[in-house]
Amino acid sequence: MSGGAAYTGPSGDLARLSINQETVKQWSLPELAAGCNALGITQVGLWRAPVQSYGVERAARLMRDSGLTVTSLCRGGFFTDAEPGRRAAALDDNRAAIDEAATLGTGTLVLVSGGLPPGDRDIAAARERVADAIATLAPYAADRGVRLAVEALHPMYASDRCVISTLGQALDIAERFPAEQVAVVVDTYHLWWDDLVPAQIVRAGAGGRIASFQVADWVTPLPEGVLLGRGQLGDGCVDLRGFRTQVDATGFDGAVEVEIFSPALWARDGSEVLAEIAERYRRHVL
Amino acid sequence: MSGGAAYTGPSGDLARLSINQETVKQWSLPELAAGCNALGITQVGLWRAPVQSYGVERAARLMRDSGLTVTSLCRGGFFTDAEPGRRAAALDDNRAAIDEAATLGTGTLVLVSGGLPPGDRDIAAARERVADAIATLAPYAADRGVRLAVEALHPMYASDRCVISTLGQALDIAERFPAEQVAVVVDTYHLWWDDLVPAQIVRAGAGGRIASFQVADWVTPLPEGVLLGRGQLGDGCVDLRGFRTQVDATGFDGAVEVEIFSPALWARDGSEVLAEIAERYRRHVL
Repeated sequence: MSGGAAYTGPSGDLARLSINQETVKQWSLPELAAGCNALGITQVGLWRAPVQSYGVERAARLMRDSGLTVTSLCRGGFFTDAEPGRRAAALDDNRAAIDEAATLGTGTLVLVSGGLPPGDRDIAAARERVADAIATLAPYAADRGVRLAVEALHPMYASDRCVISTLGQALDIAERFPAEQVAVVVDTYHLWWDDLVPAQIVRAGAGGRIASFQVADWVTPLPEGVLLGRGQLGDGCVDLRGFRTQVDATGFDGAVEVEIFSPALWARDGSEVLAEIAERYRRHVL
Repeated sequence: MSGGAAYTGPSGDLARLSINQETVKQWSLPELAAGCNALGITQVGLWRAPVQSYGVERAARLMRDSGLTVTSLCRGGFFTDAEPGRRAAALDDNRAAIDEAATLGTGTLVLVSGGLPPGDRDIAAARERVADAIATLAPYAADRGVRLAVEALHPMYASDRCVISTLGQALDIAERFPAEQVAVVVDTYHLWWDDLVPAQIVRAGAGGRIASFQVADWVTPLPEGVLLGRGQLGDGCVDLRGFRTQVDATGFDGAVEVEIFSPALWARDGSEVLAEIAERYRRHVL
């Protein structure tokens, strides 16, 4: 298209929309690429397991050939085990995740810190082990053009999945390192309830620490295990547009990545889900 | 026992232990009184519905005749509905709860604030409606010797049960009123994950705002609906003794109220459950 305006597709207002692949996990990677192309969506967030199954190099080529930018790779982390052997294994696995992110051409590896090991009641010490692991990994990642993005997960995951529960805690860790090496994820599903979030978004933005902005809605009742209860945009109680406005007010102009884990969405036709997300995104986020 | 030392029962180390009746909800009020007497437990926390079924005056007499102090009544609150008729009904119901607390001789009415009304995405405004309701009710309660105790519930309840999610938020509201009228609940189950809690406990204690200290442990996986997943003391990851030590360090010397909602405990013999709680309390809290 030399000489012409850049092609923005039929939906220029979707320019910032990124689809996290877990949102339409019923799709293979080629189906995801085709589905995004069909709607004019140009960005995706990927997960390690399906990328590994498909082949990392092959996935990178598919994304490139489909004109898709990879906005993030989920996920590294799980740093809280104190036992030396398992700790070394976790660091090795994170180096592999960093390599995969570099191969995929994304500058953002999302970190889910890990929960408390069995029998452990010292969450402050577990958080320090997260910081220690990041200290080890950040230079390795930076050398490969990858920034580590610390994600705060909702406090209901604090014991078994992620000891980092607030944006404030994530920033407390990230700010120990250069902003070009370690940043944070702002995810509406995890943070919406926190009255301190507006101030922490300002703090994150001022420090250039927002690596990723993810959106999902909060709906109840929560399912057993509370992992797969996220809501389609607009179905819940999160002021998604208010969040996006606050994040943008800091100067952030990166992707708005939709990440919804929902068996109800997975049971439907992927194209139908993607079209609904685009419509909801326009109505509730833009 | 005039002339002798005060009788502390066979278990003087249980002097501060209070049993919230919901913990042994398989028991009637007379069974609860007899069970506590048998173990030398002298304090209970009560709930409105079973007290109303039994008769409020009659329950007060039973507790008095059994030598039991009522450390709290659960619960008032549910203040977040903006619709005038339902709002007035909520205030009326809270006045009835205050009257019941006064009749039972407890100085503490626990408030669970309520969640977001359907379709509402403005949690900050909902929190203000909570403060407004407390402004209306606090003098009525004070006239009857009852203090309102704002309870922060875990953030996983923010949308459907309680928009007050942290001890800091609870104090932000309580501190708008005199300390003798409005205070807070410190509950380990709801607050354990929050790194800001130690500072907020100091703040609460310094202001004389700790009306109630409740303990339960955090265990996973959470059940569907996440209401009935609390853990027996010592079964989970909460540093219960550390919490108790911090609360006591502020000068608090009130009851340590065990409040565990657990179908596994309800399915067992009440006396066996109570004895286990006493043993776990000694081992993990004292």
